[in-house]
Amino acid sequence: VRGVAATFTLPIAIERGASLPIHRQIYEWFQSAIAEGRLRPGGLVPSSRGLASELGVSRIPVVNAYEQLRAEGYFETLVGVGTRVAKFIPIQSVTVGKAPQPGVISGSASKSTGRQISRRAAVWNKSPMQPWVNGRSTFRVSLPALDHFPIDIWSKLIAVQSKAISRSMLAYGDAMGYGPLREAIADYVRAVRGVRCEASQILVTTGSQQGLQIALQVLLNPGDRVCVEDPGYPGARQAFAMADAEIIPIKVDTEGIVVSELLRKGGLAKLVYVTPSHQYPMGMTMSAARRMQLLNWAARNGTWIIEDDYDSEYRYDSRPIASLQGLDSNARVLYMGTFSNVMFPALRLGYLVLPPNLIAACRGAKNCMDIFCPTLNQAVLEQFIHEGHFARHLRRMRMLYIERRKALVSALQSNLGSSVEISGAEAGMHLVILLRPGVDDLTVSTDAAHKGVAVMPLSSCRISLGERGGLILGYGGVSVQSIHDGVRKLRDCLERTEGQTIRQGLRCE
Amino acid sequence: VRGVAATFTLPIAIERGASLPIHRQIYEWFQSAIAEGRLRPGGLVPSSRGLASELGVSRIPVVNAYEQLRAEGYFETLVGVGTRVAKFIPIQSVTVGKAPQPGVISGSASKSTGRQISRRAAVWNKSPMQPWVNGRSTFRVSLPALDHFPIDIWSKLIAVQSKAISRSMLAYGDAMGYGPLREAIADYVRAVRGVRCEASQILVTTGSQQGLQIALQVLLNPGDRVCVEDPGYPGARQAFAMADAEIIPIKVDTEGIVVSELLRKGGLAKLVYVTPSHQYPMGMTMSAARRMQLLNWAARNGTWIIEDDYDSEYRYDSRPIASLQGLDSNARVLYMGTFSNVMFPALRLGYLVLPPNLIAACRGAKNCMDIFCPTLNQAVLEQFIHEGHFARHLRRMRMLYIERRKALVSALQSNLGSSVEISGAEAGMHLVILLRPGVDDLTVSTDAAHKGVAVMPLSSCRISLGERGGLILGYGGVSVQSIHDGVRKLRDCLERTEGQTIRQGLRCE
Repeated sequence: VRGVAATFTLPIAIERGASLPIHRQIYEWFQSAIAEGRLRPGGLVPSSRGLASELGVSRIPVVNAYEQLRAEGYFETLVGVGTRVAKFIPIQSVTVGKAPQPGVISGSASKSTGRQISRRAAVWNKSPMQPWVNGRSTFRVSLPALDHFPIDIWSKLIAVQSKAISRSMLAYGDAMGYGPLREAIADYVRAVRGVRCEASQILVTTGSQQGLQIALQVLLNPGDRVCVEDPGYPGARQAFAMADAEIIPIKVDTEGIVVSELLRKGGLAKLVYVTPSHQYPMGMTMSAARRMQLLNWAARNGTWIIEDDYDSEYRYDSRPIASLQGLDSNARVLYMGTFSNVMFPALRLGYLVLPPNLIAACRGAKNCMDIFCPTLNQAVLEQFIHEGHFARHLRRMRMLYIERRKALVSALQSNLGSSVEISGAEAGMHLVILLRPGVDDLTVSTDAAHKGVAVMPLSSCRISLGERGGLILGYGGVSVQSIHDGVRKLRDCLERTEGQTIRQGLRCE
Repeated sequence: VRGVAATFTLPIAIERGASLPIHRQIYEWFQSAIAEGRLRPGGLVPSSRGLASELGVSRIPVVNAYEQLRAEGYFETLVGVGTRVAKFIPIQSVTVGKAPQPGVISGSASKSTGRQISRRAAVWNKSPMQPWVNGRSTFRVSLPALDHFPIDIWSKLIAVQSKAISRSMLAYGDAMGYGPLREAIADYVRAVRGVRCEASQILVTTGSQQGLQIALQVLLNPGDRVCVEDPGYPGARQAFAMADAEIIPIKVDTEGIVVSELLRKGGLAKLVYVTPSHQYPMGMTMSAARRMQLLNWAARNGTWIIEDDYDSEYRYDSRPIASLQGLDSNARVLYMGTFSNVMFPALRLGYLVLPPNLIAACRGAKNCMDIFCPTLNQAVLEQFIHEGHFARHLRRMRMLYIERRKALVSALQSNLGSSVEISGAEAGMHLVILLRPGVDDLTVSTDAAHKGVAVMPLSSCRISLGERGGLILGYGGVSVQSIHDGVRKLRDCLERTEGQTIRQGLRCE
């Protein structure tokens, strides 16, 4: 019996000396609570003794009321369980909740009532479910190999930490994050990513998305201009739209964001958002020359840079490349990382490395957004890093993803033709295949999603229209066997869409 | 030795066949990493064997490089520990981090660089630390009795849940929250608060502050008008400012927000924010008549209502009063709750009960803000509620707070005079004492904070200036003994500020 009602104090207002006797007041309260759906069929109710004590009345009126309710079929008593609201209520008038049913309401809140929602919310209201982000289907982007995460170690650390919870770990924490975790993150990004920082510059977030939100709140006024990579990360674009920013799309080429286009279009930009380690979604790495051009342009132009280093951890054919932040001598880069891809998404922890003169403002923004991150989760993660489990896990995952990437590339080549155009397989957890010009990637993705293959259409990352379509395939969370099956299904979808055999279809012409 | 560097793969780029021999490349990488502060004094470095394998080179060049680094004093080797960066580096050129030191930067980011931060961030930058929110001093507002939280039960539930973590609990979860927790919250607010809802209307948040942020993103465009109680909750005001809303202060009287003033000033308001159960900070309960007036006004005016029911759980002299949401027949109330006060702040979980036609938009906003809440935390809380621990904890805390409230009221009366004006002691975890007209509450609060007594000045909750000052005393987290000590210290501060004996000073004239 899943009914929590019995354990809580029910808000029954007893009026002593009223013309209505107490047992009747109790009876009527339950009757209307059931009729209005506040108490549900099958839900436990307090024992008569418990309720009498809660209400400060003798047990007799409660027993009387309960008997009446039982007699009329509102209550039923089960031996060993207690008294509960009857599973089948005899009256017609029962409505389960007076609020409109979720099924029948329309997306528009403003039509019938005159009340309005915001412009941005109207977009959220209309935006269709994207079938390729559902569940954990094959090739879902950004999903790591969860079945290889060392759950045992993690559980053990949680158990150890939870036994050592101190009072101060229950109280309000620092908006910047849990001190030891900030130290560990600073050590990590300094050593591995060449980031130049002190622990005082680390702000612990609930992930990249919140990192972006904090940065935008601190840097942008409504209407300010933001340059973004095109194609680029849709989550960032959403965040910019939410901040009422004017979004300026900037092309990317094989070396990353095209700085000459920034020169032309980005003159008034307050901010530029880039993914230098492994461009999202195309997967190329920003060249050293481009990095210096970008930093120089930003310095001259007075523009902030957000460096989203979201899956820099996995590089296969060459050593990791140091961060843009580490090359910046003007404290203009906000470096952003997340543990969602390298640990697991449900952890909800990430970080910002802030220029020192943004610390106070970003602390204010985090405080205003959600005060601070859950302390226990931060403490367990710190322990996981400190004991070396994090580094070991990264190493093991790198080996695993190398294998999966290899399997995917070879399956794509043998199924779609050896000249299939693949982009971005040198790093990260996903790659892109480009479709023949004119083929609609949204059609292919929707079709594939219904077959359990979650390939994200490249067009969903693009701002400019009419560009060549493609498919983004995440391989982090997919076994080699599923990769083979998935690619075969994908070939069928492509053949159907293109109306011809695929071996010609995908060749670069 | 707290140095995580050793466990990670270092980004050393080895160029084979370069003129610089491999051992020299390794040596130079370490030298500059240490000089630039990317590796810190005392931090462990990988073993020579480990590094050789990582780099795919033979062990000889690594051993050579390490010997050189040791010889020059960069490295030191400790038996049983391994090789680490020397604690005292011999060269002058070592800079610990090239970024400016947090201590020396000024609050203004724009001055020296031409780069700007947002208007709202400029406020965060300037806002002084409020001494009365520091730490866990006596009378800190919103701090529950953490030493009475059943940590043992909580730890045990965490341990049980963490052993049962499934792969799907590691993956991306629903933006609306963990299904079973949404059910449990719906059961709870229906039964105890008279809220009319289905679990589908529950959105799990990281607390009230995020609940507000989501609501504002969905309801407000920049420049929209919002009516707030004055005095009112500063956290809400901050959130409205962040949303670039125009804030319209509305007076409160003994029955809550003054609807006649809403009629006069709120004509174009998109939203009104209220705390009907226990007005923040004054503590009165909105009367039934006022509730109906407010709902009617909102219906006619096309205005949304946010009902922040933040400490409705604790009512002492009468039974809890059902929520405004439960009286609303037009689906215009967004009901907001948090577990910070009734569980513990570091849990970071709360909820919104949404009108059905706002579900899609609010899901979109949550997704855009931080995707979803950590799954394990939600699962443990659900278990805590489901097994009845939550209800038991609430009951115990209610008894404890009754005792603390009584001790506080009597200590105030015996120290400050029996006619001291106290407001809002019927419910919640704080009360307000009003100061004599003209006495500056900020001075008293600042003075008291330096003596370890964290009383919040009423003026910090006010928008209109020149109103009577007061002090907000949280008593949830304070033992009876500390209450007595705290009140005595407070009397001293008041006497100093008012320059006279207190027994006259606080009398209502």
